[in-house]
Amino acid sequence: MSSKIEKLENKLGELSREINEKKIPVMILFEGPVASGKSRLSNELYMKLDAKYTEFIATKMPSEDDLRYPFLYSYWKTLPKRGSFNLYFRSWYAQFIQYKENRLKKSVYEDYDVLIEQIKHFEEMLIEDDYEIIKFYLNIDDDKRKEHIEKTKKNPLTKWKAEEYEQAIDESVYKETMDKLMKKTDSKLSPWHKIDYTEREETVEEMYEIIIEALEDALKRKSKKDEKREVDGDFTKDYKAEILTNNKEKIDKEDYNEILPKLQHRMRELQYALYERKIPLVLVYEGIDAAGKGGNIKRIRKELDPTGYKINAISAPTDVELDHHYLWRFATDMPRSGHIEFFDRSWYGRVLVERVEGFASVNEWKRAYDEINQYEKMLSDDGAIIMKFFITIDKDEQQERFEDRQEDEHKQWKITEEDWRNRENWDLYIEASEDMINKTSTDYAPWHVVPGNQKKYARIYALKEIIKACEKRLFGVERY
Amino acid sequence: MSSKIEKLENKLGELSREINEKKIPVMILFEGPVASGKSRLSNELYMKLDAKYTEFIATKMPSEDDLRYPFLYSYWKTLPKRGSFNLYFRSWYAQFIQYKENRLKKSVYEDYDVLIEQIKHFEEMLIEDDYEIIKFYLNIDDDKRKEHIEKTKKNPLTKWKAEEYEQAIDESVYKETMDKLMKKTDSKLSPWHKIDYTEREETVEEMYEIIIEALEDALKRKSKKDEKREVDGDFTKDYKAEILTNNKEKIDKEDYNEILPKLQHRMRELQYALYERKIPLVLVYEGIDAAGKGGNIKRIRKELDPTGYKINAISAPTDVELDHHYLWRFATDMPRSGHIEFFDRSWYGRVLVERVEGFASVNEWKRAYDEINQYEKMLSDDGAIIMKFFITIDKDEQQERFEDRQEDEHKQWKITEEDWRNRENWDLYIEASEDMINKTSTDYAPWHVVPGNQKKYARIYALKEIIKACEKRLFGVERY
Repeated sequence: MSSKIEKLENKLGELSREINEKKIPVMILFEGPVASGKSRLSNELYMKLDAKYTEFIATKMPSEDDLRYPFLYSYWKTLPKRGSFNLYFRSWYAQFIQYKENRLKKSVYEDYDVLIEQIKHFEEMLIEDDYEIIKFYLNIDDDKRKEHIEKTKKNPLTKWKAEEYEQAIDESVYKETMDKLMKKTDSKLSPWHKIDYTEREETVEEMYEIIIEALEDALKRKSKKDEKREVDGDFTKDYKAEILTNNKEKIDKEDYNEILPKLQHRMRELQYALYERKIPLVLVYEGIDAAGKGGNIKRIRKELDPTGYKINAISAPTDVELDHHYLWRFATDMPRSGHIEFFDRSWYGRVLVERVEGFASVNEWKRAYDEINQYEKMLSDDGAIIMKFFITIDKDEQQERFEDRQEDEHKQWKITEEDWRNRENWDLYIEASEDMINKTSTDYAPWHVVPGNQKKYARIYALKEIIKACEKRLFGVERY
Repeated sequence: MSSKIEKLENKLGELSREINEKKIPVMILFEGPVASGKSRLSNELYMKLDAKYTEFIATKMPSEDDLRYPFLYSYWKTLPKRGSFNLYFRSWYAQFIQYKENRLKKSVYEDYDVLIEQIKHFEEMLIEDDYEIIKFYLNIDDDKRKEHIEKTKKNPLTKWKAEEYEQAIDESVYKETMDKLMKKTDSKLSPWHKIDYTEREETVEEMYEIIIEALEDALKRKSKKDEKREVDGDFTKDYKAEILTNNKEKIDKEDYNEILPKLQHRMRELQYALYERKIPLVLVYEGIDAAGKGGNIKRIRKELDPTGYKINAISAPTDVELDHHYLWRFATDMPRSGHIEFFDRSWYGRVLVERVEGFASVNEWKRAYDEINQYEKMLSDDGAIIMKFFITIDKDEQQERFEDRQEDEHKQWKITEEDWRNRENWDLYIEASEDMINKTSTDYAPWHVVPGNQKKYARIYALKEIIKACEKRLFGVERY
């Protein structure tokens, strides 16, 4: 081994341990035409990094099942933990080309360019969160490449591999599209590095040098950022919660008892219709403690087929979840096509409890509005109906409900010291909620503010809105 | 709502919170012919349990991708956390019938009855680990059932669902096979409960009563067990580590340099051949600190295609992992067909470090030998080649390697206080290793004790053994 490579390897070893310690997540992408040396080069790197915090992720032709989830789903799920390295053999770029060239999910994507936008937002969002993304594009001398393919073909044990090469995306299409993609996604903080694999040893050295420089930069940026990290909120405390004051609506008990089962029966029919048409439905519930979120959700699910819906009841994140981007824990809950996902609290925790309690820095929760809009846009691009319900109650009503819970032996478990503590921050929660509704109500994922002082009214209200939205999508008309 | 049901629901609520607190994992299965009420009954229960610790798992027709993993893979992956409830709409029983009737993976399973054995061992193992398994088989009056199917067919929105019914497994086959399966898997601690769904309200009551009784029993068993829990080891300390004393073999440096690249090249060819034939290869490495496991693995992977192998470097379990059966964390690493999984340390931690350090009780590590044998049998039933390497070095050799690491600035990070502490338990580790090798060497997953004082010898030894085993499986002959 040349002593230059040895030095680079030692340097890389040192830096990777420091990266691990400082908890910076690193993603290293290998793109390039078939037989350009991606597998050998990435294996070289894979062997040099500590297996305890290194994952190797190969992008394959998506399976039937993969196609039932959003385009970036598998990359979201496998995001590296803070301090870990992910190596990607082909990546979301190759996957984009597969989707576009093979017209995958063509009934969902009218224009495949929305996926390029998703890729850009995905990378930007991760970089904002201190992820280091290093992108390699490999080239190889054409004679060498052909020679390699011929050799693979001649060996009876590896012949099928060469055949696989030939079935991949047409090479000129791959190269041409990658050229365009690289131009669109080359940025200061995650530039593309084109390297040539004709001479193995030189290429390995070049790769190490690029990675070393990138990791050194990442460490510098991180320590600068840690210095100036702010964690206090910036509440003005003179807000007017106009949006959230409309709480007086009521419904008669008789009307409620008559209409509820009908709506629930309709929900079941619509669930089957959504399933058949493979349309996912995402229902997000937010609202202050005791607003009636869980009870409202129960009324929606009463007649549903449980094989087609899921309840995600969100509590404080686990250690593993804290070691990822805050949206990561929700990535496994992206809806499967035709399924219904309920969220009893959600990613909006970032701009509610995390803002109010200071768990997120000002910079973090402020940029979260846009990140969330992009995240929901991604679900919507993928065909999902997204509805968000904010159930609002008065402060007096909450007091009454808390006392009720304390007095009823079967409900006592529902109320804790923490609930009373949170109540002291009532005004801050309301202000945060109002900001949230203003900044994240979009055409594709609107907020519905639900008057909640009377639970029955809130339930009928939500049921009707959901039915209306589903019917509109399914049949193009509203019946209610 | 009848007040009897209300009382049962309150009782169930109380018990489920206690189960959650006492960290007992609960699995509730719903089997039964199509349109027998499984979905409505399980939804009733799903709504009553706290969504924070309840998952609903629907068994579907396995996808192409599912078939690349062992039969029980998806159930392993989704095992409930301690204190959580999993509801199964159809389960491994229905899946068994799908496999058998549709002859799925028929090239792998000559006799589908091995899967029944797997199911029995799976349940027994979980019950030993305090999992509570409640199994329901639903029946319904035949007229009611037909009426329900007709109604579903008439509604244009649910018509496809009825068609799905008709495509399911032939009903008489399902009933007949389930009868046999229930007889074989009815045990004192996880009996089958046949209930009739003809009258909805009665059925719901019956279900609650059965679950309440089972949960009460589980809580009693758990508190009894906690009382008499032993955690000390039972080392005799007069062992003779005969198996592990053969450490003197050496290889010439020139021979090594000549033969190593040839074997590595052969490994790459064999990797492709295994991939084409879809044979998984599992390589487990154990051995005391500094035995040379990582370096040995590196020599095997040198020329491999990284898209087809994975390194699992096992450290101390995370909190989430500790909240599951100890084998759960390895379940996601079950090999995909045609792929190679390396384990740098493994599930054998249960009978090594966990035994020596007292992290596992005597009862736990003693029963682990058999559990591990069954686990590996399951991988083997599924076509995997399993090889386990125990690299052995002398105590003096370890001392030297530790000192080397301390002196070399690029290796210092590898050695910690903990390594020196573990060294004090050298004899206990050796005894535990010897027990392990004696109790878990099987035809389908043999241990190879590798003389490790000279690293080069150990590497060539392992490479040759792996190549030999792969060639034997692939071509039916041994070349080395």
